[in-house]
Amino acid sequence: MNTHAEASEPVLLREERDGCVTLRLNRPRQFNALSEALLGALQSELDAIAKQADVRCVVLAASGKAFCAGHDLREMRAQSEKAYFQQLFARCGAVMQSIAALPVPVIARVQGVATAAGCQLVASCDLAVAAASARFAVSGIDVGLFCSTPAVALTRNISAKRAFEMLATGRFIDAATAQDWGLINRAVADAALDEAVAEFVAQIAAKSPAAIRHGKAMFYRQRQMPLPDAYAFASEVMACNMMEADAGEGIDAFLQKRKPVWRA
Amino acid sequence: MNTHAEASEPVLLREERDGCVTLRLNRPRQFNALSEALLGALQSELDAIAKQADVRCVVLAASGKAFCAGHDLREMRAQSEKAYFQQLFARCGAVMQSIAALPVPVIARVQGVATAAGCQLVASCDLAVAAASARFAVSGIDVGLFCSTPAVALTRNISAKRAFEMLATGRFIDAATAQDWGLINRAVADAALDEAVAEFVAQIAAKSPAAIRHGKAMFYRQRQMPLPDAYAFASEVMACNMMEADAGEGIDAFLQKRKPVWRA
Amino acid sequence: MNTHAEASEPVLLREERDGCVTLRLNRPRQFNALSEALLGALQSELDAIAKQADVRCVVLAASGKAFCAGHDLREMRAQSEKAYFQQLFARCGAVMQSIAALPVPVIARVQGVATAAGCQLVASCDLAVAAASARFAVSGIDVGLFCSTPAVALTRNISAKRAFEMLATGRFIDAATAQDWGLINRAVADAALDEAVAEFVAQIAAKSPAAIRHGKAMFYRQRQMPLPDAYAFASEVMACNMMEADAGEGIDAFLQKRKPVWRA
Repeated sequence: MNTHAEASEPVLLREERDGCVTLRLNRPRQFNALSEALLGALQSELDAIAKQADVRCVVLAASGKAFCAGHDLREMRAQSEKAYFQQLFARCGAVMQSIAALPVPVIARVQGVATAAGCQLVASCDLAVAAASARFAVSGIDVGLFCSTPAVALTRNISAKRAFEMLATGRFIDAATAQDWGLINRAVADAALDEAVAEFVAQIAAKSPAAIRHGKAMFYRQRQMPLPDAYAFASEVMACNMMEADAGEGIDAFLQKRKPVWRA
Repeated sequence: MNTHAEASEPVLLREERDGCVTLRLNRPRQFNALSEALLGALQSELDAIAKQADVRCVVLAASGKAFCAGHDLREMRAQSEKAYFQQLFARCGAVMQSIAALPVPVIARVQGVATAAGCQLVASCDLAVAAASARFAVSGIDVGLFCSTPAVALTRNISAKRAFEMLATGRFIDAATAQDWGLINRAVADAALDEAVAEFVAQIAAKSPAAIRHGKAMFYRQRQMPLPDAYAFASEVMACNMMEADAGEGIDAFLQKRKPVWRA
Repeated sequence: MNTHAEASEPVLLREERDGCVTLRLNRPRQFNALSEALLGALQSELDAIAKQADVRCVVLAASGKAFCAGHDLREMRAQSEKAYFQQLFARCGAVMQSIAALPVPVIARVQGVATAAGCQLVASCDLAVAAASARFAVSGIDVGLFCSTPAVALTRNISAKRAFEMLATGRFIDAATAQDWGLINRAVADAALDEAVAEFVAQIAAKSPAAIRHGKAMFYRQRQMPLPDAYAFASEVMACNMMEADAGEGIDAFLQKRKPVWRA
């Protein structure tokens, strides 16, 4: 599905400003479908960011009218081997898990439709902001392909019956419903989308990088543990966090009613 | 508690139309209490449906004013052996788990009250539609019997504090609240109940049977897995789904902007 | 941080009336921060209540303008050994788990702010009622200390993206939002707070103590189990509950349309 235009332009754009990396899906004519090339580019960038100590957060954005329409159906249809699909879905799942594994928060910036693996991307981010006109679906069922891997992310975000309905009927939900159900953090007026994303970016940038790193890694891991194990693990993480210079500085600043200066 | 009238009528009615099986709890004078006979009939029908390749979905409905008032207290009170109750609750749990294990979606059609194991039935279905006047409770606590097995289903549908309140206080919630909390998918005007159920049935009937089968089995199983295992499992399921003729047909139809014709 | 005034007054007040124990955090000038002394007192009281057969429920309340502002930062800042913090967070986690392990329901009565471990206390209670003016945050991130142990309780109460936002941004939510998200059961007018708590206390006092005990222990344990194990466990608990005199009395009373008289 590589058009001439696409060949001349990267499928993923990277922009960095003040410690915030914006990764922009850039296949607008294909509604940013996750081709092999795009999945590969996403994985590479996420791997690189994981090693970059000066990055504070990542915004996952998209060019054009849609956020992401899921897998590239044309590309998939050109294949017929099960091994190919196993590998494709494994790579996609690896990208999604890399988002959770990243030491900095990842914010989805959603306009237009986010469907199938596109909806999964939103579900996999730590935070998500959407334009009021955005719509969400896990609509693979409409092409005979139940959104099984998107279901993994979706069911860890919204309640069972709502997830099942979306998966079994392909129903689209609007941004207000997505916020009500907990799939996204904010639905804002279309014109206010960048401002709302920038607000989250600024909030995170104002925190101690070490504390955010400690916290995000703990957040997802403890969720999967029985309560006593989760407490034992979180206690250890929090004790480590207390040994960081930033915690001392933060508490001192609080007690002295001044702004903290993080060690970064 | 077999009345003369009941003896002459089956406790569970089965109706099949266009691949949709309606199972109707039919002990209206007992508010469709789940007697041994009714649990047995439900289990038999669910087992039979599991083997019927031409069934596309199941509607769980109920005769009379109430959906289901839970276990048959009169029948239970006639017993005194712990072994009896162990077996009774095990059979009830088996019915609930058979709903989740069924390869086709099960839709609860709820009117009147759904209490205790009746509320558990609603929670155990994949989808649920209720009349606006329906009410839900896990009110065993009011007769000195905490709804422990209903809690298993309830806590997998709604949040912890809401579930605890319902279980510890016996509080009834109305259909709008049940929808807001995620216990049901839709609360509709009483007169629109059948239409709303029919809409779900039609939506599911329009999908690829193979895709629904792949998806439902995956849905509940992956929820209980750690994230990497869930992704590995869902990827395998999705690759298998892609090898089905319906996925190819669905994607081709989508790309050609025509309606798919499932192999069924 | 022991002031002269505090030295003369216990950090935790205990009041018992009609089988309901109110534990009142009593460091109002320190916004009821959970000092070592207060954590120790809470643990002792919870341990004692666990052995007291005549207690029916516990209300966790707080003196002064705030419910609880979390750990005592001044006390923590006086320490520098990791082992100290490991022990401190372990003790705090033990208190939180003791609330869940208590055989009777624990109701949080929340006014003012509930932040960090104070918000964790609310999340750890079985039920929570808050004044409309109350506010909730896990704002450790603002002092460079990600609320890792509060996250354990918070993520078992509210959905992932909302929990992550609160943890990563320190955002305060009001009581109405806390109710909407499931963190608390009720937000009521400030003047109606005691009445709303009393209503829950009265509801629980009217139930069979044995049934509540069976149910609460089952509630949290089954949530962490795979579905078949959860059903097996809940069935056994429910069979045991049926062997209690109260279940027989409750069912008889129901069938005879009279009020049950619990054996207590």
